[in-house]
Amino acid sequence: MQVLGYAVKQAKGMLGPYSFERRQPRDHDIVIDIQYCGICHTDIHQVNDEWGGSTFPMVPGHEITGVVSQVGPRVTKYKIGDKVGVGCFVDSCRKCTSCSKGLEQYCAGMVTTYNGTERDGKTLTQGGYSEKIVVDENYVLKIPANLPLDKTAPLLCAGITLYSPLMHWNAGPGKKIAIIGLGGIGHMGVKIAHALGAEVTVLSHSLKKEEDGKKLGADYFYATSDPKTFEKLKGYFDLIINTVSAEIDWNQYLELLAIDGTMVVVGIPEKQIPVGSFPLVAGRRSIAGSLIGGIKETQEMLDFCGKNNITSEIEIIPIQQVNEAYKRILDSDVRYRFVIDMKSIKQK
Amino acid sequence: MQVLGYAVKQAKGMLGPYSFERRQPRDHDIVIDIQYCGICHTDIHQVNDEWGGSTFPMVPGHEITGVVSQVGPRVTKYKIGDKVGVGCFVDSCRKCTSCSKGLEQYCAGMVTTYNGTERDGKTLTQGGYSEKIVVDENYVLKIPANLPLDKTAPLLCAGITLYSPLMHWNAGPGKKIAIIGLGGIGHMGVKIAHALGAEVTVLSHSLKKEEDGKKLGADYFYATSDPKTFEKLKGYFDLIINTVSAEIDWNQYLELLAIDGTMVVVGIPEKQIPVGSFPLVAGRRSIAGSLIGGIKETQEMLDFCGKNNITSEIEIIPIQQVNEAYKRILDSDVRYRFVIDMKSIKQK
Repeated sequence: MQVLGYAVKQAKGMLGPYSFERRQPRDHDIVIDIQYCGICHTDIHQVNDEWGGSTFPMVPGHEITGVVSQVGPRVTKYKIGDKVGVGCFVDSCRKCTSCSKGLEQYCAGMVTTYNGTERDGKTLTQGGYSEKIVVDENYVLKIPANLPLDKTAPLLCAGITLYSPLMHWNAGPGKKIAIIGLGGIGHMGVKIAHALGAEVTVLSHSLKKEEDGKKLGADYFYATSDPKTFEKLKGYFDLIINTVSAEIDWNQYLELLAIDGTMVVVGIPEKQIPVGSFPLVAGRRSIAGSLIGGIKETQEMLDFCGKNNITSEIEIIPIQQVNEAYKRILDSDVRYRFVIDMKSIKQK
Repeated sequence: MQVLGYAVKQAKGMLGPYSFERRQPRDHDIVIDIQYCGICHTDIHQVNDEWGGSTFPMVPGHEITGVVSQVGPRVTKYKIGDKVGVGCFVDSCRKCTSCSKGLEQYCAGMVTTYNGTERDGKTLTQGGYSEKIVVDENYVLKIPANLPLDKTAPLLCAGITLYSPLMHWNAGPGKKIAIIGLGGIGHMGVKIAHALGAEVTVLSHSLKKEEDGKKLGADYFYATSDPKTFEKLKGYFDLIINTVSAEIDWNQYLELLAIDGTMVVVGIPEKQIPVGSFPLVAGRRSIAGSLIGGIKETQEMLDFCGKNNITSEIEIIPIQQVNEAYKRILDSDVRYRFVIDMKSIKQK
């Protein structure tokens, strides 16, 4: 079937209208009429081929919400009219240890929603900046009835990126959590950690977003440009989630961890970061990484957000403004996530 | 009481005979006639003031075994004639969270066995290269009856340095463990991990020690100078313990970890090591640090070694050869730990 989307034709190019083919639904496929798609910083990295290996034309987008418009003959999980979402991947090998544990995000055969290759080894995947997407029902998420599709779109990547490490490292009552960076993913961390009952501190470059941060659920807010922050909070946190992809000095933050504390990195700075052994050894501290979440956990996250009425803070744009939105993201000029209203794609 | 030891008078100096004062036993103190003291690489770092803040004259030594020769009036745990040991610290604040959890090694007020300051804030501590030591009974370990005091001395530092992370990160049946470096502490890791029922692999610079490694309990032995090692073992290990203080490329080793695997650093390289986020994020992997162990865990380790007949491989020397032994350690010319026979100290 022919689908209209927005694509970039070459690395660092501008996004523009692009018509392309999607497969007819197979036995277990569903067709989703996309209503909203969030803009993730990862989209920009891949459009600019910053990690290498990008394929073009590329239709980005992996924070997708919409409604089921067609189902394959053997689909059992969804029916036409259901509110659904698609996140960062649309398939995986389904056989490896990671897949069997519901950790498909770590499967070597994981198929990314865009800028990836289907399991046939040749079909390139295209993402959510488009009218429709065709996805195997096992890689589709159910959106709780009370959540609006626009503000829910960012949960599919930003939400799960923070929910998964918060759960894995046991955020909850009595735990002191810090979130470094109050951006698109950081602000989701504040909301989720707060709802989990943890004490939440935002570590932000300045105090500019302090009022916002506290409204979102932060108990405390500190400026990392103030050296006193690092003296005052020494040894304080059980868990620090570092949402910043910029090259900051990790060692400073490791010193803020309590004994047995962990700093979890969810961004990928371009360069390697020098790490001193002393703060690790002297407190049995850890640095760990975490990547989105598996399908089962993403569904749990959505259900948790449904129960706690958690969605993203967003600015809705028509798709014609996507190139401008990219620039504003690079200038940190968004509170806190751009979401494309996909019905704009038919406008001239 | 006047005690004879071997001290260095200034940074990077040579060790020589030194007579000094130890306190008379207080209520809870015991006096130990030192029979053996292991030589730890840490002794050399501190003698050379490589970490800064060393105090002189310094009597090194924190792998101490001996026999109780005197007890304070309120001592209940030990009696004259008991075989005992002393490790890396002789006191701690006894009130903080770490102390209350039996993690005295992470207490900010922990008093190191030598090159430290007693809780009175002024008395410098002096270590095990000496005839006698006076220690509070709560910081003394019981040596199992079947273990010889010479080969047991290195357990007090090298043994617990590996036992603690192996236990904390659940080494045992079904787990694949790698030990980087088959030296004084690495060889204890091989023995202990093997006794815990884990599959043990040694990652050593060359295959020179392969036969030794397998005799000590390693299932596999690979040379890290061979690039094929890093291809073959990609994603293989649940736990890697890095005993090497030299500046090696941690990223190569992180790639050898399975999903959720951890690399634990127990040495402290002088420089910071650059770490890439990708291997962490793409497999929820961790880098952690670990420092010796608490008193309770050190006793557990000794009891475990007693049950499993685990001791260190040693070369016994008279104290007059200590300076030569330091040179040989720096040349990696020891299999696997020097232990000083302390009765030699009275020889002319």
